[in-house]
Amino acid sequence: MTNYKLTIQYDGGRYKGWQRLGNGENTIQGKLEQVLSELEGEKVEIIGSSRTDAGVHALAQIANVKLNKNITESKISNYLNRYLPQDISVIEVIEVPDRFHARYHAKDKTYRYKIWNKVYPHPFMRKYSMHIETKLDVDKMIKAGQYFIGEHDFTAYSNAKSKKKTKVRSIHSMEIEENEGFIQIRVKGNGFLYNMVRKMVGTLIEVGLGHIDPDHIPDIIESKERNQTGRLADACGLYLEKIDV
Amino acid sequence: MTNYKLTIQYDGGRYKGWQRLGNGENTIQGKLEQVLSELEGEKVEIIGSSRTDAGVHALAQIANVKLNKNITESKISNYLNRYLPQDISVIEVIEVPDRFHARYHAKDKTYRYKIWNKVYPHPFMRKYSMHIETKLDVDKMIKAGQYFIGEHDFTAYSNAKSKKKTKVRSIHSMEIEENEGFIQIRVKGNGFLYNMVRKMVGTLIEVGLGHIDPDHIPDIIESKERNQTGRLADACGLYLEKIDV
Repeated sequence: MTNYKLTIQYDGGRYKGWQRLGNGENTIQGKLEQVLSELEGEKVEIIGSSRTDAGVHALAQIANVKLNKNITESKISNYLNRYLPQDISVIEVIEVPDRFHARYHAKDKTYRYKIWNKVYPHPFMRKYSMHIETKLDVDKMIKAGQYFIGEHDFTAYSNAKSKKKTKVRSIHSMEIEENEGFIQIRVKGNGFLYNMVRKMVGTLIEVGLGHIDPDHIPDIIESKERNQTGRLADACGLYLEKIDV
Repeated sequence: MTNYKLTIQYDGGRYKGWQRLGNGENTIQGKLEQVLSELEGEKVEIIGSSRTDAGVHALAQIANVKLNKNITESKISNYLNRYLPQDISVIEVIEVPDRFHARYHAKDKTYRYKIWNKVYPHPFMRKYSMHIETKLDVDKMIKAGQYFIGEHDFTAYSNAKSKKKTKVRSIHSMEIEENEGFIQIRVKGNGFLYNMVRKMVGTLIEVGLGHIDPDHIPDIIESKERNQTGRLADACGLYLEKIDV
């Protein structure tokens, strides 16, 4: 068997997220496994680095798949791009050592969030950004963002149903910048809980709107209370940007 | 009556172009007139600078409309953005002299065309660019593009059904550049015939593929034969970028 690492880009808009659910559910993993199984001639399983939520996009999801068939990297990639839906692209396929496991070997992850901050909607980015009509105070958001950096117990930013043993995660960086009407938030960390990025962005939006004081962020984190974080930012503004493996 | 100039951005993907057709046809002009008529309380007509085709986008279409109601610019713009579909945005409304007419006062027009030139499809730009899998020779395209500049009889680049008296148009500039997998073509002229930009881009694609020699462009233009120009580029890659009024 040969192990292949795949780099995948997708518009998550019409999918129920990465993870395969029951039969017939529309998921990224499901679509990839369907096409790869046709190529292989038998059922195969693909392992993703990150389980993106319903509606969340990926610029570079990393996955691995083991195939019996002796076939070149470019043939796999061409086959996938020919038979996958147009909103899922395979941008790279490379042979990797047998021990490579996309989830276990994922170290740091970078997510990007796009806010369109003008009074009028953006006709081309309406499905690829969150629209906030009220002018946000970006300086305050930048100040607030810095409090997330470091190792914290992110219980306040987790989902009530989460079964993760520990909710301690390290945020390495949080970059916030404004450019031509867009506010982009880029956050890098060693892992993120379910909905954690969208909840952090939700808090930052409340800060930008003047509803939460930037200096209040440490209290919110320390409170470990999920009702302190403000809104959950829309899925359509979130992109899995990079996985360090 | 007060005359207003509107700057409008739209995703033309699901519309039959700018120009209002019969009742109930899905057009940009039709949508705008519907909402403006509701605001005005009676039927109003909006005049556009450029009649973009079905599926063509606009970054800054210019239009004008005369309203009886005494209402501020920002109220008109807010009303439109509230009631228009999300794929049409009004980015500016300003009061202009009564004599201003968006079509008659349009001087130069700039169009932009986006080609995605990688083997894999672009999940986010699939509806906003034309996908050409084969690597195009951009240097040849740049060379070919220069031959369009100047005043020419563009009969070869017109539609057979066109009723325009003269097919002479002036192309002021043609910029072609490659950036991160995209080839962008920007063409500015004093006017364009129906389908003319998409036909010019079609020729440039044939040049990039090596099917047409760059130095053959003057012959194609001089031939005045419509079957010499190669393919018609997809509507979804074309954007009306700027109107000089």
